[in-house]
Amino acid sequence: MNMPELLKYPNPAARYRAAFHCINGCPGEHALNEIIYQCPKCHDLLEVVHDLDPLRMTSPNEWRDVFDSRFMRTVWPYGSGVWGKKEFVCPNISDDNIVSTCEGGSNLFWAEQLGHRWGLVDLWVKQCGNSHTGSFKDLGMTVLVSMVKQMRSEGKDIPAVACASTGDTSASLAAYCAAAGIPSIVFLPKNKVSTAQLVQPLAHGAITLAIDTDFDGCMAIVREITSRNNIYLANSMNSLRVEGQKTISFELCEQFDWEVPDLVVIPGGNLGNVSALGQGFLIMIAVGLLDRLTRILCAQAEHANPLYQSYLHGFDSFQAMHAKPTLASAIQIGAPVSIKKAIRVLKQFNGGVEQASEAELAEAAAEGDLTGLFNCPHTGVALAALKKWIQQGKVTRDERIIVISTAHGLKFTDFKARYHAHELTGIQSRFANPPIEVPADYDRVRDALFRALDARNAQFGRPT
Amino acid sequence: MNMPELLKYPNPAARYRAAFHCINGCPGEHALNEIIYQCPKCHDLLEVVHDLDPLRMTSPNEWRDVFDSRFMRTVWPYGSGVWGKKEFVCPNISDDNIVSTCEGGSNLFWAEQLGHRWGLVDLWVKQCGNSHTGSFKDLGMTVLVSMVKQMRSEGKDIPAVACASTGDTSASLAAYCAAAGIPSIVFLPKNKVSTAQLVQPLAHGAITLAIDTDFDGCMAIVREITSRNNIYLANSMNSLRVEGQKTISFELCEQFDWEVPDLVVIPGGNLGNVSALGQGFLIMIAVGLLDRLTRILCAQAEHANPLYQSYLHGFDSFQAMHAKPTLASAIQIGAPVSIKKAIRVLKQFNGGVEQASEAELAEAAAEGDLTGLFNCPHTGVALAALKKWIQQGKVTRDERIIVISTAHGLKFTDFKARYHAHELTGIQSRFANPPIEVPADYDRVRDALFRALDARNAQFGRPT
Repeated sequence: MNMPELLKYPNPAARYRAAFHCINGCPGEHALNEIIYQCPKCHDLLEVVHDLDPLRMTSPNEWRDVFDSRFMRTVWPYGSGVWGKKEFVCPNISDDNIVSTCEGGSNLFWAEQLGHRWGLVDLWVKQCGNSHTGSFKDLGMTVLVSMVKQMRSEGKDIPAVACASTGDTSASLAAYCAAAGIPSIVFLPKNKVSTAQLVQPLAHGAITLAIDTDFDGCMAIVREITSRNNIYLANSMNSLRVEGQKTISFELCEQFDWEVPDLVVIPGGNLGNVSALGQGFLIMIAVGLLDRLTRILCAQAEHANPLYQSYLHGFDSFQAMHAKPTLASAIQIGAPVSIKKAIRVLKQFNGGVEQASEAELAEAAAEGDLTGLFNCPHTGVALAALKKWIQQGKVTRDERIIVISTAHGLKFTDFKARYHAHELTGIQSRFANPPIEVPADYDRVRDALFRALDARNAQFGRPT
Repeated sequence: MNMPELLKYPNPAARYRAAFHCINGCPGEHALNEIIYQCPKCHDLLEVVHDLDPLRMTSPNEWRDVFDSRFMRTVWPYGSGVWGKKEFVCPNISDDNIVSTCEGGSNLFWAEQLGHRWGLVDLWVKQCGNSHTGSFKDLGMTVLVSMVKQMRSEGKDIPAVACASTGDTSASLAAYCAAAGIPSIVFLPKNKVSTAQLVQPLAHGAITLAIDTDFDGCMAIVREITSRNNIYLANSMNSLRVEGQKTISFELCEQFDWEVPDLVVIPGGNLGNVSALGQGFLIMIAVGLLDRLTRILCAQAEHANPLYQSYLHGFDSFQAMHAKPTLASAIQIGAPVSIKKAIRVLKQFNGGVEQASEAELAEAAAEGDLTGLFNCPHTGVALAALKKWIQQGKVTRDERIIVISTAHGLKFTDFKARYHAHELTGIQSRFANPPIEVPADYDRVRDALFRALDARNAQFGRPT
């Protein structure tokens, strides 16, 4: 439409290139439109490596102008927070094959009230759950599903895309496939998941197979099905998703006019997001967009804390564990797929790990809600970890701190309702706010109301 | 930060002015920072009227540049879709008093797959539910709560803001008040609302009074409490909210590089949103930003269709009705507050009204979900109305049509789960997609999967 070609093609002479490489450095590379998930030699993960030379043919200031000219604007698909950075994400894909819901561009919420309570003046929350399917997974799924559309358009016989998931990944996969008209398949253990948990993939028409086994049995069947039938695998071992997720880092900097925050706090389970956050900062450094790194704090639930245990030993060793049930259900993972990538990133970023108990995460989520946020329990883990670092003196009042909120609280209304009804076992619900019952009488209502107001003002003070 | 002052203050000589006027034309006006909800003479609604002369001191092209320089950018609070149009919304409010979650800027989703099913090539869905609290109410609430903060900063004694609501309005009010540190109060009939329905205001710390009466009794007490205690009333008779909601119209045009769509479809209950949509288009025409109006189709649930009944009689008369329960619960309204404003707008916009039965709205919502949307039942009403207009030949294949989606489907997962479980009485659930149960055996899983894929491809065809 009205965007200059120069900005759509920042440097027509540049030939952008990215390929899969083994994370352990095994020789060889694989095209991004190849159906491959693991290194054929060592069977470990792959990662996308970008050729930096063409990216450096555009200066950092020009890149900033390019990004700015695209961000949330109308030229398809560059208005998306992900695809506005296409050259850094997945360059060789036709714009016509991109499946996008204008992901990214989520609000960076100044947590003024929460910062005030916690003694911070520059606290922000990146609202990644403010998205098409309500979680940050959309940032990665747009890349994966677009690549599938590209491969199908090239004549590859990919009848469907599949994942084993009962949460945000299946929701996002199903939505993007539905938008593209590509069949999606969700594998899950029979009788372990309610219809309510499944409502997003069901609504989006995903073929949903409830298999008479547990989650590990399910995963084994998915791998066999996808390896033998050209069905594309969308689980976290697929490294394309990281390329979209890493644009979070770009947006954090962009939304502060390219100032680097002092600390980013992010919840960690499978640890793909920590890895993505780091990759984003590293490639920005590599092309000169930034001159320093941020610090990263990865927050784990105490019931699923293998990275935290490794951190206590200086990341010298790592042991998978059997994760216990946690309210932060999406990060109840004892053997994180992206563990090596995450440790590598945390070492490079002077990073730390903190854990949160069930009570700590529930109270922190509720305290955040009370100040205008609407947190998922995973964001509660991140907030609780930050609160502990504040108490331990590991952050100072004036530091610019960003907490990554990974999903919309609307996905967790049951957790919140139970919190406020004092129904969460072992949790005090310090911020519970039950309704006050009053007879239908003006004076009684007025009295009850002003008593509650006085109590509230005594607790919070009255802002001027 | 880096925005030229010229764009922050498009014309330093312009003195923007807006005031409350009676919708029936009673003489007199009232300042926007006055606590007033009704015309003191005829007791009907007020509306905000803008002085057009200062707005016309900036040319349409300059305004477009101003809007573009602000939209989703970093200069507080102009990045918000609402506050980027501050001069047209609520000009005389200090930027420091604005309470914003960067509302607006929601995706305009190209409904390619749904359009394909319905024989349309230019069908779009404005995703207003992609917001801080998950509904379009945020667009108006940011204006109302900012004005309260402004009035408190001017020394007015406003101890709290109140509404009688159990839905999106209370959620939005509570969130914005929490972010601002202003107490909020929600009035509701005791035992008629579950904790789950209330979870947003409870989580945001709203003082929630469950009164031993029905909804009308509740409303009577709210009016008495707010009229006698300086507590500010946030219900729909407060016309400030319309000023924020009308920026939807600006965004629709902006997101098409200022081309006017042919038809906008919007669900209607209390009808404030129809009125707001119209006000946005009218003021754009008045300052020369547009040269023609769009057509508007207001969609009502058959169980709450007083506007539709009036439309059948050429809007000559209007009769309030007793609304019956509908799945589209937020528009179950028999006596719409904004009826006069809405009829005025529909007459000006060559507008129409269509109704949707419970089955029609549920099936349309599900059909939309199947194509990548995630619709609330109210959006289902809008989609069903559009589908009926297509069948009646009232729209043509090439028209550019925008459906306003008012809330995120995540607020209605119970509705969706029941649809897919065939639990909605009287509804066929034509698009139900239940999980397929399979034993944990590779061959059996593979067979089930490809049978389902074949069935799916037979239904949808395979896109190329």
